[in-house]
Amino acid sequence: MELSKLFSKTTKNIVKAESKNHELLVRAGYVDQVMSGVYAYLPLGKKVLEKIEEIIREEITAIGGQEILMPALTPSENWKKTGRWDTMDDLYRFTSYYSKNEVALGGTHEEVVTPLAKKYILSYKDLPKYVFQIQTKFRDEKRPKSGILRGREFRMKDLYSFHAEEKDLNQYYDQVIQSYEKMFKRFGLKEKTFLTFASGGTFSKFSHEFQTESPVGEDTIYLCRQCKMGINKEIILTQKECPKCGRTDLQETRAIEIANIFKLKDKFTKSFKVVYLDEKGKENTVLMGCYGIGPSRIMGTIVEVLSDEKGIVWPKEVAPYNVHLIDLRENKEAEKLYEKLQREKVEVLWDNREESAGVKLQDADLLGMPIRVIVSEKSLNSGGYEVKERNKSKPEILNEKDLIKKVKDYYAK
Amino acid sequence: MELSKLFSKTTKNIVKAESKNHELLVRAGYVDQVMSGVYAYLPLGKKVLEKIEEIIREEITAIGGQEILMPALTPSENWKKTGRWDTMDDLYRFTSYYSKNEVALGGTHEEVVTPLAKKYILSYKDLPKYVFQIQTKFRDEKRPKSGILRGREFRMKDLYSFHAEEKDLNQYYDQVIQSYEKMFKRFGLKEKTFLTFASGGTFSKFSHEFQTESPVGEDTIYLCRQCKMGINKEIILTQKECPKCGRTDLQETRAIEIANIFKLKDKFTKSFKVVYLDEKGKENTVLMGCYGIGPSRIMGTIVEVLSDEKGIVWPKEVAPYNVHLIDLRENKEAEKLYEKLQREKVEVLWDNREESAGVKLQDADLLGMPIRVIVSEKSLNSGGYEVKERNKSKPEILNEKDLIKKVKDYYAK
Repeated sequence: MELSKLFSKTTKNIVKAESKNHELLVRAGYVDQVMSGVYAYLPLGKKVLEKIEEIIREEITAIGGQEILMPALTPSENWKKTGRWDTMDDLYRFTSYYSKNEVALGGTHEEVVTPLAKKYILSYKDLPKYVFQIQTKFRDEKRPKSGILRGREFRMKDLYSFHAEEKDLNQYYDQVIQSYEKMFKRFGLKEKTFLTFASGGTFSKFSHEFQTESPVGEDTIYLCRQCKMGINKEIILTQKECPKCGRTDLQETRAIEIANIFKLKDKFTKSFKVVYLDEKGKENTVLMGCYGIGPSRIMGTIVEVLSDEKGIVWPKEVAPYNVHLIDLRENKEAEKLYEKLQREKVEVLWDNREESAGVKLQDADLLGMPIRVIVSEKSLNSGGYEVKERNKSKPEILNEKDLIKKVKDYYAK
Repeated sequence: MELSKLFSKTTKNIVKAESKNHELLVRAGYVDQVMSGVYAYLPLGKKVLEKIEEIIREEITAIGGQEILMPALTPSENWKKTGRWDTMDDLYRFTSYYSKNEVALGGTHEEVVTPLAKKYILSYKDLPKYVFQIQTKFRDEKRPKSGILRGREFRMKDLYSFHAEEKDLNQYYDQVIQSYEKMFKRFGLKEKTFLTFASGGTFSKFSHEFQTESPVGEDTIYLCRQCKMGINKEIILTQKECPKCGRTDLQETRAIEIANIFKLKDKFTKSFKVVYLDEKGKENTVLMGCYGIGPSRIMGTIVEVLSDEKGIVWPKEVAPYNVHLIDLRENKEAEKLYEKLQREKVEVLWDNREESAGVKLQDADLLGMPIRVIVSEKSLNSGGYEVKERNKSKPEILNEKDLIKKVKDYYAK
């Protein structure tokens, strides 16, 4: 992509930045705020979101998830059946002008996926089943804040699993934990993310959250750094006995909840009477688990946790472009390199704007691609291009062949 | 994918089918109706939708479109500024419980993209710009009907272009027409789709629609089959002079509007005061075009137009799987072939259910994959596998090597 043709621009003027991710993402032109808690993803931001969602898709498909797409408009009857029409405060509810039907905008989809699964699950032979979607969700948040960390409209991956036996649900639940840990590694968040015990609601003793340590996090958690495990303050307050670690040696910290998983068991399948016939022809209630992770919140968390004073630092698997190419002299060298790299399947953002070296270097740091390449009089006189990783301070001079090798090695999994 | 593990199932029971696409897509388990005009896309349906959307993405990217993602929640102020808050009947409007803000669910996005473009367009050097999104849209339809052809919630690609000069807008408009024609070819709809003159609204003499001939279409158009051009009845009735063909020799027919394109010119840019400075430093209003196409409606149209009495007939580029493999004897031959084909990057749906030959053959026709492969005692005795294209009647016996060659040749572009 030629930066001179990009739809968005970088800007220095940010009014009322809610948080670091809001400020950096808007300044760099990744997102634009349309209203409180509602954002548009611009070309660079859409690319990051897409890469995050593709990683999630790959990992969930690898554990048997089948992708579907449920609607945002959901009938009130379903929410009334589970009782959540009256209890979910942040549900957007309204009435269709023509049909006079009450509908809710899906903020979660148990009320749609459970009756859907009922249609296709009849016998034990139909179990287990795993379906997921990656979709825009809506919650009428009282006070949306922290940029794209908590919005009224946000992206969500929700996976639902259906089982005959609790043992099978437990096994799959553990598989999802491993799958999530693979994702966090690819998002560059593994070091700071902790599996955390949280309230299980009315249907389970505990649920689990994945909490990423950050001062802007809304949750207070207690961490045992030895066993890489956390406990959400909410259960410390309400439950007498704490899981595993006990209360000694735990360290209080703030964290962002980037994912959560629940053993719903029969909570929703009972409401919708989802049953299967077992081998003896006896009717049993299907058991269920649900597993959420928010791509837009992941994007905001990466910016909060990994950026530095100069700007964003994207991990290699989610960066919108592999290489940020800067052109500091007016000749054909940079253009040739741009085309050569693209032929080698390297994704390149080429700053070919008529701007000063200072502006171009500042913007490269702000935008945060993992590898910066400068073509200048000086670099060419030294025999090639100046190459620097975003999170290292020392550049090196590489010729074309070595540059391509470096980029390929860097991005090889 | 093993059919025995697929989330959905085929069914014979359809209550109140609205149309052929509704009936076939629900019976085959591609979609499920959640409420009137609102559908869930099941694993097979999601795959078709994804392939359609990927074709659109490829073709629009090829003409310079940059992908973004705008929100569904849009502020009422923007709609009031253009006057459409009061005139768009099918806009879902409601008030946030907490913020008391009036919002609309985006049924189209001129009211969001225009002020967004204003932020980044300052000078003639910033033009032209092309942005698009592929997104779920909402319209409070009076009477949603015809399955996924006209829903209250549907998928849409909307492209917006911004220009300094009308000549440039006209040129890009023609480029989009060519881009759309490439898509229709890939969707298998080219033969039956006609560029059709339609009302230009208050801002242009004409707009264009792409109309696909079908008895379930809601539009009446007059076709000149020689020059492959249509005129929508709405302008025959309102305008004295008709474009190009005149009124002789035109044939009346019904058609489905699968895409539309508008030269909006300054209609929205004037409301939001989107201006650029020209080379002389003079302020001019930016000109704009918008270009829609609906992936979910395309999917419904393909089913309406291309299916036969036995079921769906997917064109090769949108079929969820390349090959439908049927297993008619209990041994390891089909499984080996399934694995072999997958190693060759062929997408295979393998019917390994415990069902009769009759049910399996019927379901293969209903599901509509382009190539059916049967492994049976008989085929193996004849030296291989029975291979048949969905829209041909004669099968052939091929050994493994020739089968792979046939599939690869068939899917080669």
